[in-house]
Amino acid sequence: MSPEGARRPRVLSLHPDRLLPAGAEERGVAREILASMSALPLVSPHGHLDARLFLDNEPFVDPSHLLVTSDHYVVRLLHSQGVALEDLGVVRVDDARTAGPHTAGPHTAGPGTDGAGASSSGAEPASEAQGRAIWHLLCRHWGALAGTPSRLWLEHELHELCGVREVPSPETADATYDAVSAALETDALRPRALFGRFGLEVLTTTDSPLDDLAVHDALAADASWTGRILPTFRPDEIVDPGHPRFAANVVRLGEISGIDTSRYAGYVSALESRREAFQVRGATATDHGVAVSSTERIPAHEVEGVFARLVSGEGSAADAEAFRGHMLDEMARMACDDGLVMQIHVGVVRDYDPATRARYGTDVGQDFSVATEYTRTLRPLLSRYGDSDALTLVLYTVDETVYSREIGPLVSYFPALRAGAPWWFLDAPLCNR
Amino acid sequence: MSPEGARRPRVLSLHPDRLLPAGAEERGVAREILASMSALPLVSPHGHLDARLFLDNEPFVDPSHLLVTSDHYVVRLLHSQGVALEDLGVVRVDDARTAGPHTAGPHTAGPGTDGAGASSSGAEPASEAQGRAIWHLLCRHWGALAGTPSRLWLEHELHELCGVREVPSPETADATYDAVSAALETDALRPRALFGRFGLEVLTTTDSPLDDLAVHDALAADASWTGRILPTFRPDEIVDPGHPRFAANVVRLGEISGIDTSRYAGYVSALESRREAFQVRGATATDHGVAVSSTERIPAHEVEGVFARLVSGEGSAADAEAFRGHMLDEMARMACDDGLVMQIHVGVVRDYDPATRARYGTDVGQDFSVATEYTRTLRPLLSRYGDSDALTLVLYTVDETVYSREIGPLVSYFPALRAGAPWWFLDAPLCNR
Amino acid sequence: MSPEGARRPRVLSLHPDRLLPAGAEERGVAREILASMSALPLVSPHGHLDARLFLDNEPFVDPSHLLVTSDHYVVRLLHSQGVALEDLGVVRVDDARTAGPHTAGPHTAGPGTDGAGASSSGAEPASEAQGRAIWHLLCRHWGALAGTPSRLWLEHELHELCGVREVPSPETADATYDAVSAALETDALRPRALFGRFGLEVLTTTDSPLDDLAVHDALAADASWTGRILPTFRPDEIVDPGHPRFAANVVRLGEISGIDTSRYAGYVSALESRREAFQVRGATATDHGVAVSSTERIPAHEVEGVFARLVSGEGSAADAEAFRGHMLDEMARMACDDGLVMQIHVGVVRDYDPATRARYGTDVGQDFSVATEYTRTLRPLLSRYGDSDALTLVLYTVDETVYSREIGPLVSYFPALRAGAPWWFLDAPLCNR
Repeated sequence: MSPEGARRPRVLSLHPDRLLPAGAEERGVAREILASMSALPLVSPHGHLDARLFLDNEPFVDPSHLLVTSDHYVVRLLHSQGVALEDLGVVRVDDARTAGPHTAGPHTAGPGTDGAGASSSGAEPASEAQGRAIWHLLCRHWGALAGTPSRLWLEHELHELCGVREVPSPETADATYDAVSAALETDALRPRALFGRFGLEVLTTTDSPLDDLAVHDALAADASWTGRILPTFRPDEIVDPGHPRFAANVVRLGEISGIDTSRYAGYVSALESRREAFQVRGATATDHGVAVSSTERIPAHEVEGVFARLVSGEGSAADAEAFRGHMLDEMARMACDDGLVMQIHVGVVRDYDPATRARYGTDVGQDFSVATEYTRTLRPLLSRYGDSDALTLVLYTVDETVYSREIGPLVSYFPALRAGAPWWFLDAPLCNR
Repeated sequence: MSPEGARRPRVLSLHPDRLLPAGAEERGVAREILASMSALPLVSPHGHLDARLFLDNEPFVDPSHLLVTSDHYVVRLLHSQGVALEDLGVVRVDDARTAGPHTAGPHTAGPGTDGAGASSSGAEPASEAQGRAIWHLLCRHWGALAGTPSRLWLEHELHELCGVREVPSPETADATYDAVSAALETDALRPRALFGRFGLEVLTTTDSPLDDLAVHDALAADASWTGRILPTFRPDEIVDPGHPRFAANVVRLGEISGIDTSRYAGYVSALESRREAFQVRGATATDHGVAVSSTERIPAHEVEGVFARLVSGEGSAADAEAFRGHMLDEMARMACDDGLVMQIHVGVVRDYDPATRARYGTDVGQDFSVATEYTRTLRPLLSRYGDSDALTLVLYTVDETVYSREIGPLVSYFPALRAGAPWWFLDAPLCNR
Repeated sequence: MSPEGARRPRVLSLHPDRLLPAGAEERGVAREILASMSALPLVSPHGHLDARLFLDNEPFVDPSHLLVTSDHYVVRLLHSQGVALEDLGVVRVDDARTAGPHTAGPHTAGPGTDGAGASSSGAEPASEAQGRAIWHLLCRHWGALAGTPSRLWLEHELHELCGVREVPSPETADATYDAVSAALETDALRPRALFGRFGLEVLTTTDSPLDDLAVHDALAADASWTGRILPTFRPDEIVDPGHPRFAANVVRLGEISGIDTSRYAGYVSALESRREAFQVRGATATDHGVAVSSTERIPAHEVEGVFARLVSGEGSAADAEAFRGHMLDEMARMACDDGLVMQIHVGVVRDYDPATRARYGTDVGQDFSVATEYTRTLRPLLSRYGDSDALTLVLYTVDETVYSREIGPLVSYFPALRAGAPWWFLDAPLCNR
């Protein structure tokens, strides 16, 4: 172990075994597996990129906007070191509203992720001076990110994509900023070029049923590029009565689908219609992040009344809770009909501090995990559809204990189930300031 | 790593280190420990074999019935690949009822496991053709079982007991079926011979207090064999008011014990009498799988009323919940008196899909684990009996987080407590179809 | 592996790698890290020693009192082997009350740990005969402690501090007792000498706000020694309305602070005053062990009424629950004002068996861990103070699943948060008797 702060400038390098096991024998096996897989094409079934990136195919203009502000994992880690969100380029909601159309960076959540308001982190950086200042903050706190997955990711991006060979530090901040800037100006780092370089076969976005998918249509019609960008149906904002714009979203659902959503039957038909519209554009999956504590269906003779109360704002907390569970079941029912793969991402308290949510919007790093329960919660749903050949349901978790206790056993019985890949990670800094 | 599907037929082999750590140094220590233990006799304190197997000592007749249908872990895994339970030989409850007496295979749960109805998985296979068809299903999905404990177990059985040296596959299905069939016809694989070969010193069954233990008596009276098969007292079906036949079981308890169980005091005496009947036949332990959320006793002046309401079907959910906790305490009290070791296996939602339960009975692979709590739940019971020299209480869990958080600390203080061995496992297939 | 019980006396030795990883490569790295750290001074931010030890600086007089009776982890393990608490020197509360002033040993909890009554384990041993008998019990059960952290700790103490080279056993009990006794008589093992030998830079105690800190004052005034012993503010017994002496403690708080605590505003001022008194004496931190399920503040116009009801004994369970959460928030508010670091140690059911608590007092080994929740519980508190530069809040847990699920993510965002070091451990014996 060489001392930190030695005189010679430190060289940024990537150890080929950096993600492999420490034991020599396991490492040998891991190398074989890695070598056998690394040339395979990537199929990315879940992501939050904005499809417009690939339509416009403009170069990324600002290292800090791309690698810091737009990546809420990096924003989170720098905030933990005492850096204010605004100093990282996170735009206040009020400012964002007057700033015109967004140009979202690679790690920005699409509009369907939350739906309660535009994520402000994707707004364009105000100036190069601000971008450079943000980069200096990243460089100053580089040491605090040691050992985190986010730093491994950043090192990969700097080294492999931008050719940076200096370790970020206050002394190298301007030089590394300039190096990344210069790299971003090259055609090799434009979105479509990266799509090819990464060996992507298909990339999915995450989209609200209220999205008209015009960008996806334009991409499909663009004869100059053959990359496949497919939408994913994420209906959280129109199936969760707790969403602040639930009632308005139901009305908007009616408009975009051309189906009267004032009653429950029409609401369901409109959802089915939008699923079909997604499927026509190549969607293969839906995604669901609404917390439920049961998947019992509301009896048929009661559901119209519950829906009416919720849309009119007169529903109780119990109505909302029951409706959320009912609609998850309803989505499984639709999936059996249309064959869209169903993904569940739950167990996260989003937008933790309401004041920060009000000031900066969503996706600024303040989403935190809680204990998750699947066995009892999904019992009604799995009893109905778990044996079905028509359903594919993928369970994700950020509570790692759920893998061996619940997801593993359930997946080992129900043919409809799949265990989702690990989601999120332990990304805490080794020490705070 | 040789490629799957190479031309030469693949040889089924067992690596001597297949269950040992990957690191060279740990593996060396593990080999020493294993070598020092492998010749020791086996004392099996918890199992679900039917004692009649050893009384009849008939050869096992069908590879599929023995290694697939009767092993609900294997049934579960094949079902997860989309195979219908009926195609695996699991018999519908209606059919089972008309099929005459069961001949249970080695992995079949005894009647005491659930008690709400006979497990259908032990019914005899209908024909050799069906057995062979089931075996083909196992062979077709052999790859999906890669890396699971169940496949390690099957490989051991095939290689060590049946002399199979071909890897199961569609091509080898008939040959391996025939090889296992031939092996099963030999005297070396009859139940008593296996008992000796495995080095078993004693094997316990799991039995309802309503079982008259006639089979155990016959075994004890059989001068031709000295193997020890002991019963275990599992009273779930007569202490859980939520059991569908609770009231009838209480009546039956009175009949088999010759003690009037219409009032609480008699019910308790009858349970004590049955424990004694088990002990006379060599039982050393009880086993309990009823979910409780507290072990508070019902006050003496209330318990008669609660019991009366529950037996008459007029008890509330709160009555049932209180009674379950009270009876777990009562069992600990009896254990202090008679010295039977008390085992607790909780944290499992059994017979998950009610429709599957109704159609196929219990023990068909659809039992799933949930988060378990011991510290608060057992506080009243351990406050009363935890320091007692007379009690031995073994805590099992399928929620592995409970080991370090609850079982470990509790066992490190209370002389009555023991930590149970790991129970169940993460047995999910690597991928579904 | 040499057989246990071989003829030659076994030699007690400490393997230099005994706490390092088993894999050769990881072990090499671990050795480097250990070597680079082992000469650093110790800063002990949380402990339960009695400051009087260092004021008196008397030699420890009894091996058993020091290494067994005063260490409730060792008491716990020996109790699990069926040894009665009294036979380990744990004094009955009634006896302790008449035994005069305590002389607490090193591992004894200070009065602030619980506050509901003096811990009896620190009372002086009755006689050398009793001490020797306790030592024999330790030696007899030495094998049962194999593999536990407590035995690693004891081996270190025996080998490094007392020069013992014989493995404890019934045969060596008298010899090892005599060796430890002789070592304890030397000046090298007096408290102040140990403080120096351990390389301690600072050691903190844990103290009730009702403590006048006279011992700390005397230590500070003692020109003959420069060791730094600082108090820590632990207010559990005056902020938890469920504490049996809550009302009396509030009155006592008024007396010691000279501020009328009959109303809420005065109560808060008195707490602030005591924090200041601690800070004047060098305290840098507070510590909190009261279980809360929320940190919502009680509205300002209601809090006076809730306080009045609780002090008068007329408060409901809901009042008490709300007040506990409110006061944790209030402590965070005060920490923002005065800069004391705030530590939270929750998730433990203390004094599990009420009868044992009544007979022997607190800290006799019967504290057990439960599942812990931080994300939802701390949401109100962290929304108010989590971004503050003025607060440092350290979260500890005995539920290891909380690290990756809750503490890690929260710490990676909120600048006020720190992840506490692992606390407690899996210390269960390999087998019971």
